[in-house]
Amino acid sequence: MSRSLRVAAAQSGPIQRADSRQAVVRRMVDLLDQAKAQRCDLVVFTELALTTFFPRWYLTDQAEVDSWFEREMPNAATRPLFERAAQHRIAISFGYAELTPDGHRYNTSILVDRDGTIVGKYRKVHLPGHSEFDPQRSFQHLEKRYFEPGDLGFNVWRSMGGILGMCICNDRRWPETYRVMGLQGVELIMLGYNTPSVNSQKPSEGPEQRMFQHRLSLQAGAYQNSSWVVATAKCGVEDGHPLFGGSMIVNPDGEVVAQANTEDDELVVADCDLDATKFGKETVFDFKRHRRIEHYGRITSQTGAILPPES
Amino acid sequence: MSRSLRVAAAQSGPIQRADSRQAVVRRMVDLLDQAKAQRCDLVVFTELALTTFFPRWYLTDQAEVDSWFEREMPNAATRPLFERAAQHRIAISFGYAELTPDGHRYNTSILVDRDGTIVGKYRKVHLPGHSEFDPQRSFQHLEKRYFEPGDLGFNVWRSMGGILGMCICNDRRWPETYRVMGLQGVELIMLGYNTPSVNSQKPSEGPEQRMFQHRLSLQAGAYQNSSWVVATAKCGVEDGHPLFGGSMIVNPDGEVVAQANTEDDELVVADCDLDATKFGKETVFDFKRHRRIEHYGRITSQTGAILPPES
Repeated sequence: MSRSLRVAAAQSGPIQRADSRQAVVRRMVDLLDQAKAQRCDLVVFTELALTTFFPRWYLTDQAEVDSWFEREMPNAATRPLFERAAQHRIAISFGYAELTPDGHRYNTSILVDRDGTIVGKYRKVHLPGHSEFDPQRSFQHLEKRYFEPGDLGFNVWRSMGGILGMCICNDRRWPETYRVMGLQGVELIMLGYNTPSVNSQKPSEGPEQRMFQHRLSLQAGAYQNSSWVVATAKCGVEDGHPLFGGSMIVNPDGEVVAQANTEDDELVVADCDLDATKFGKETVFDFKRHRRIEHYGRITSQTGAILPPES
Repeated sequence: MSRSLRVAAAQSGPIQRADSRQAVVRRMVDLLDQAKAQRCDLVVFTELALTTFFPRWYLTDQAEVDSWFEREMPNAATRPLFERAAQHRIAISFGYAELTPDGHRYNTSILVDRDGTIVGKYRKVHLPGHSEFDPQRSFQHLEKRYFEPGDLGFNVWRSMGGILGMCICNDRRWPETYRVMGLQGVELIMLGYNTPSVNSQKPSEGPEQRMFQHRLSLQAGAYQNSSWVVATAKCGVEDGHPLFGGSMIVNPDGEVVAQANTEDDELVVADCDLDATKFGKETVFDFKRHRRIEHYGRITSQTGAILPPES
């Protein structure tokens, strides 16, 4: 049986603060219809796909904060998305701000199978930014304020004949993210992101260097674990704040095989043969033969750097 | 005090099986003299810098195997190198096959300070290839036959006002390598390599893809740990076997700042400001604030991949 999946990274253009979830879901359904026309098996939407990237706003009113969160999934606003995906027999993944019944808040993504059933959930582990208003920054990035670090770890799921994993945005810069999934045999990693085009602490950095580091992280993670990586942006200018695009699909050799041309709603499509992950996993990255865990202890025993003593 | 070091990757052209160590050391001393003329502080030579890449040969005579190893360092052949480096007040690093007094064999590199004293030793952890003759390969890569995996781990050393680390060849493809040193605050990583231009198990791969994956690994390791990386090839055609070049120096943003133009003896020089590592270490890669070791357990608890159960 072929294990080739036709996958779309469903890039999202900007979502303004005033845009309703219903309007956003209509755009997502439009992308699903386009994906159906292209005979896609899986559509990967972005991080916080239903709303603007609200962590750029410093909010002190908890009710206002909570207005950006979803209390159940699916809910009234997203049900049309689930129904259309099931009707098309397309599996989907998308991100949203999750408020649990017991009051925890996570930056979450889910995997929904072709029948419309939620089969996987991931909660973002590597939250970037800060938790209090920072007057030094040219804009805020308050993910550490609004979310708790994910409590589910980096899991994988068997779906559509393959082994699929998820991570979100800043997770992609951390090799631990890919490796923990790689150690479970992951064949395709899905991730969405909302990444400012400007470094709020280093304006000179510029979008070109930032795009380079984004690509670098995706490509290294794919190559070093011999896995497909599907990365989907929300991008364009949200209420004056630019987010970069660069949605792309990377093959298990680390090569970009498809990428976005716009900073707007756009499907980026590639045929991902999951069997193409085998050669790398059986040769240079055959972990069982080559890894030497006796020398990796610091990776799990210490969080921050511990410098050698001054002589 | 400035913490900028002028560093040279001292790329080596091919060393034929018949070439004596004395002849090789003369070439290394020539490169040292060139580095002195360019006012370098540190010269990074390659892996197995004194001999041909002998693990491509299947050898059954132990005396012949041992002829490729060094029983002490410095020794008669390498003393001129140590003396010239100390005379020039240049620190050096280079690799060689090490045979210990108690009979262990390692693929080793050392760091020699400006006074000519050996201050650091590293033994290659990630040995690629195989241990028995493999008729399926277009040529042999018998590192697992001739060497034991390194027993010293990934250490760092304070030297010349900075924190320096070493790794060797295939280590560079493993994010664990960089991360263990990153967790000790490494600011500059030195590595040598001998990398065949052809994949012995996949001739279609081609040197371009192999060079891409080499660069990708160096750049990701540098960026994700906010460290300089200095990578030095032995390259060109050794007794009919091509090794690729691509010696380069990568800055803590992951950008290549200098690279080789040849596949022969060549100095690749860059000024490496160790303070340029600070921004990354204090922001996006401030490990203490952002790493979540509670979710990294598999990295040190399991060597090979463990697949999820079939449903």
